Amino acid sequence: MKKIALAFAATATLLSLPAAAQFQKPEDAIKYRQAAFTLMGNHFGRVAAMAQGKVAFDAKVAAENTGVLLTVSRLPATAFGEGTDKGAPTRAKPEIWKDAAKFKAAAEKMTAEVAKLDTAAKSGNLDAIKAAVGGVGGSCKGCHDDFRAERHSGG
Amino acid sequence: MKKIALAFAATATLLSLPAAAQFQKPEDAIKYRQAAFTLMGNHFGRVAAMAQGKVAFDAKVAAENTGVLLTVSRLPATAFGEGTDKGAPTRAKPEIWKDAAKFKAAAEKMTAEVAKLDTAAKSGNLDAIKAAVGGVGGSCKGCHDDFRAERHSGG
Repeated sequence: MKKIALAFAATATLLSLPAAAQFQKPEDAIKYRQAAFTLMGNHFGRVAAMAQGKVAFDAKVAAENTGVLLTVSRLPATAFGEGTDKGAPTRAKPEIWKDAAKFKAAAEKMTAEVAKLDTAAKSGNLDAIKAAVGGVGGSCKGCHDDFRAERHSGG
Repeated sequence: MKKIALAFAATATLLSLPAAAQFQKPEDAIKYRQAAFTLMGNHFGRVAAMAQGKVAFDAKVAAENTGVLLTVSRLPATAFGEGTDKGAPTRAKPEIWKDAAKFKAAAEKMTAEVAKLDTAAKSGNLDAIKAAVGGVGGSCKGCHDDFRAERHSGG
C-alpha cells in the first residue's frame, strides 16, 4: 500500500499538491477528473480535426486549444487517489490502483505527448502538429484500453 | 436575434473561436460548460480556503490554482450558444438567451475578477488574495442568482 501511496504522491507533484488533500469526498474527485477529461477531449478534438483536414487549419486557434489542453492535462492524475474507485458513476478500472506504477507511467506519457503537441502547435507547422496529434491520440487510446471500462459503475 | 448572435460572437472571441463551430450537439456544449464550472469551483475553492484560513496559506500552491482557474474561466462563455438551453440536464435559465447582453457582462465580470485574483496570487500577498477572492466569489454568486436555476431541467 505504501508503494501505491508514493506513486500517487509523485503524480500529484504535477501540481505540487497532495492528492488526498484536494477532495472532500470520493465523488468530488470522480467528478473533477471526469470534467478534466471532458475538456481535454474537446480541445484535443479541435486540433485533431485540423490535423485530419476536417477543419481549416488556423495556427493561432490550434495553439490556443493546445494551451488549454496542456493546462488541463495535468489535472486528472491528481484525482485518482486511494478510495476514489467508487462514490459516483465511473469508468475507472480497478487496475488503476492495482497497478499504480503502470497507470502513473501512462499518465506521464499522456502529459508528455500533450506537451509535444503544444510545442508543435506553437511552431505553427502543420506536419509537426499532425505527428504530435498521433502521439497524443495513441496515449489516450493506450490508457483507455488498459484503465477505462466500457461502462460506468460504482455510483 | 442578430443582437444575441453578435453578443455571443463577441464573448467567443475570448478564445478566438466562433461559438457555433465548437460543438457537434447541444449536449456537448452543456457537458463542456458544466465541466469547466466543476474545475473552476474546485480550484477557486482551494484558494478561497486559504483566504478563509481553513487551509494553510502556500503562495506557490495558490498561484498554481489561480493559473488553472484563469485558463478554465475563459471557457464556459463559449458554450452558451443559441440552442444549448436543452439537450442534457442543465441549470441554465432562459434569461441567459433572453438577456444576452447582461449575461455577457456577467461572464466578463467573472473573468476580470479571476484575472485580478491570479495577479494577487502571483504577488504572494495574502491580504490582496483575500480581497480578490471576495471579488470572484461575488461574481460567481451574482451570475448564479440571475442565470442559474435551483434544479436541472432540459435533459
